[in-house]
Amino acid sequence: MIMSRIEAPRDEDDAAAAVDRTAGGTPGSPGSPLGDPSTLVDRLLAGLPAGSVLTDPDVTASYANDMASFCPAGAPAVVVLPRSVEDVQHVMRTATELRVPVVPQGARTGLSGAANATDGCVVLSLTKMDRVLEINPVDRVAVVEPGVVNAALSRAVNEHGLYYPPDPSSWEMCTIGGNIGTASGGLCCVKYGVTAEYVLGLDVVLADGRLMSTGRRTAKGVAGYDLTRLFVGSEGSLGIVVKAVLGLRPKPPEQLVLAAEFASASAACDAICRIMEGGHVPSLLELMDRTTVKAVNDLAHMGLPESTEALLLAAFDTTDPAADLAAVGALCEAAGATQVVPAEDAAESELLLQARRLALTALEAVKGTTMIDDVCVPRSRLGEMLAGIDRVAAKYGLTIGVCAHAGDGNTHPTVCFDAQDPDESRRARESFDEIMALGLELGGTITGEHGVGVLKKEWLAREIGPVGLEMQRAVKQVFDPLGILNPGKLF
Amino acid sequence: MIMSRIEAPRDEDDAAAAVDRTAGGTPGSPGSPLGDPSTLVDRLLAGLPAGSVLTDPDVTASYANDMASFCPAGAPAVVVLPRSVEDVQHVMRTATELRVPVVPQGARTGLSGAANATDGCVVLSLTKMDRVLEINPVDRVAVVEPGVVNAALSRAVNEHGLYYPPDPSSWEMCTIGGNIGTASGGLCCVKYGVTAEYVLGLDVVLADGRLMSTGRRTAKGVAGYDLTRLFVGSEGSLGIVVKAVLGLRPKPPEQLVLAAEFASASAACDAICRIMEGGHVPSLLELMDRTTVKAVNDLAHMGLPESTEALLLAAFDTTDPAADLAAVGALCEAAGATQVVPAEDAAESELLLQARRLALTALEAVKGTTMIDDVCVPRSRLGEMLAGIDRVAAKYGLTIGVCAHAGDGNTHPTVCFDAQDPDESRRARESFDEIMALGLELGGTITGEHGVGVLKKEWLAREIGPVGLEMQRAVKQVFDPLGILNPGKLF
Repeated sequence: MIMSRIEAPRDEDDAAAAVDRTAGGTPGSPGSPLGDPSTLVDRLLAGLPAGSVLTDPDVTASYANDMASFCPAGAPAVVVLPRSVEDVQHVMRTATELRVPVVPQGARTGLSGAANATDGCVVLSLTKMDRVLEINPVDRVAVVEPGVVNAALSRAVNEHGLYYPPDPSSWEMCTIGGNIGTASGGLCCVKYGVTAEYVLGLDVVLADGRLMSTGRRTAKGVAGYDLTRLFVGSEGSLGIVVKAVLGLRPKPPEQLVLAAEFASASAACDAICRIMEGGHVPSLLELMDRTTVKAVNDLAHMGLPESTEALLLAAFDTTDPAADLAAVGALCEAAGATQVVPAEDAAESELLLQARRLALTALEAVKGTTMIDDVCVPRSRLGEMLAGIDRVAAKYGLTIGVCAHAGDGNTHPTVCFDAQDPDESRRARESFDEIMALGLELGGTITGEHGVGVLKKEWLAREIGPVGLEMQRAVKQVFDPLGILNPGKLF
Repeated sequence: MIMSRIEAPRDEDDAAAAVDRTAGGTPGSPGSPLGDPSTLVDRLLAGLPAGSVLTDPDVTASYANDMASFCPAGAPAVVVLPRSVEDVQHVMRTATELRVPVVPQGARTGLSGAANATDGCVVLSLTKMDRVLEINPVDRVAVVEPGVVNAALSRAVNEHGLYYPPDPSSWEMCTIGGNIGTASGGLCCVKYGVTAEYVLGLDVVLADGRLMSTGRRTAKGVAGYDLTRLFVGSEGSLGIVVKAVLGLRPKPPEQLVLAAEFASASAACDAICRIMEGGHVPSLLELMDRTTVKAVNDLAHMGLPESTEALLLAAFDTTDPAADLAAVGALCEAAGATQVVPAEDAAESELLLQARRLALTALEAVKGTTMIDDVCVPRSRLGEMLAGIDRVAAKYGLTIGVCAHAGDGNTHPTVCFDAQDPDESRRARESFDEIMALGLELGGTITGEHGVGVLKKEWLAREIGPVGLEMQRAVKQVFDPLGILNPGKLF
């Protein structure tokens, strides 16, 4: 079934009239040298519909950043809001011809600076390409444009009895294209995996404007190299995703949540290991440390138990979630939980999840600014990771709250600091780096789900090594020989 | 926990004595020109343990082929059986220096000729690197060498309450390295997905002998491009996998199987669509057409109902499989099943699965030779696919039996022919091609799980288009600039 919105009518003759020309330059002046912003804007306008090219510096400046701290961003020359594949092709052809960098963006909710503008770039905001083109319950696929908001897709497939699992915290705002670019995770991953596992096929506009299809819409397929997965998590550095075939699952029963309090983080981590070792498959297994619990209470007066050192949330969306929660509750008690409270219904479950969802906002309120880390370790090392973060916080005299997708070993150590205080800012940055080093030492990765972007590019080489880095750079060179696609990210 | 076998002691001094030198040439003669087989063998011997270099032409010839029909194979110059990463590095350094092609092999159970030798190549058989290095029930990972047999790993992880799902039909023989190279599927995929979804990280020896690690051993990780997935299904054309970190699941309850007979393939396909649309998650959903049912009866006298036009097997490994089978049985009846027989216990289930597992062997007995196709279509098009295969069989006057991983839309149309009859052989090849064209027409892929190899390389471009092909070739060039890794496969 097709669920297309009617596309806005195009009138290319109106384009010149509609565009904001405050960026200066004489439009259409013959013989403008390449590199002159007016040449760029004119060339873009020549092939794009009215209203899709923004040049007002106040407006374009608002597209400079995603939500990461400490990441430099440049001033875009122009922002383009394409509405079709052809629009994107025109932008890339123009950018190739003029050697202008292109920074693709979704909702800019990313946390690594991967969507930050570079000086003089074209920001290519895919938010207007937001149609759900197809939802097919027999094939269990959805076909979407990149600008579809995650929550909009989730709700649309729900109406067909289907489920699109990836649920980053920003799901009410973030786009599927952004999720693909950053290979987003979320709370569901412990059972349902990450975005990458739901991307079956892509249409991609290459740096030179050519259109390439990857992958498939079938349940299986192994024809040639898996370029689909190469694009997932590539942060817009290899091409522009303009269409995606996504795999779906049947909608599971509503999940029921349990909360368990522990007198130490180490006991909570022990419980996590016993739960996973015991073969349980929770739909969510989250941890909040004492700092996070206190921050949430301060913000929202939720009455969470502040005496607790670690609060574990486990959920099941099975046919008998109460039985699963009972088994997991017993494991928590055996690991030393001081209290285990299973929710009795969906409303109670939702209340517990709200506390978790507020965590980052609450930590942000502690000192005004946060740096959210994203180190993922083997879950058997989670206890060591949390103990290490405590040591780092003490060493630098900082407040570092940890919430974690604990079932995945994916921690979000969140450094709370006052950005007006240069010394505290410096210590925040140093502690952030030390946490990544610790993650690598424990056999983990510097980023479980947020990506490398600008924030962690110095760390990528430390994780993947010189040979890996060389090969990754060579792959980038294949798809972007001129280096115009989101330059300065990843490497 | 570590489960290493003791590695055979090495004695490099014995190497020269142990090697079979019947391939000719004067060993070690100074100044041997590059390209001289004796130079190649000497250079290999200089860095490899005793017994790992085979040159007897009768022996090396036995390594020329995998199990595909109609695929040309050359004569290897030498077969190497490495026992360590360093051995593999030595082979690749030597091959790079001498510009000699290297064809990596597992158990050679592949069905696309991807493991076929080329003239004068080094066959690199990874079967002796067969250690399970680690099984970790908390992290739910196994770390293995590439030569581990699929069934050996499956049994080893089972003992820890864990499950490694990918189960190609050849699982008692095929190796994990081969499964990774060909991105194997199996019967489990409708619920558990394919090999690719279980490969978290790899150690790969590159064409020039350098070692590269990709991916991770954590549940999540997005540091840089996903090179792991690039190697999965790359048929040994990008590098040599020498170690893999595999994701595991908790061992599910034993599955219970149901058989449903239909008076037409179209009714069976309708049932499949209703089952999947209804949100059911069978652990297996297989179809055998009348030709296959008859062949199995002829071979094994299993007493399957020969009046049936299509036999559907569905299984569930849930906590209440009988309830799931009842629901699915009702859907089959509503779609026109003439009989629905749920197994009452594991023994009855096993009997039904035996029939399915015999399918290819049984079809082979029909005419002596088979060509097994592997076209996968969206499951909503499965009925059209089967009807089309019937038309192709009639057009070419051939017997084409179809068994299918029906829940995935992955068909194995199996052309039965007499290889001694040139005209029938020609018709077999033509019908095989026509079936691929039909698959593409229906929005499918030429290969759901067997790969491209030699068999389908002319078809790859038709599926992925000229731009896709160009980019895939460029990626190959990055990893294998000299073109020595499994040349002539895929492209």
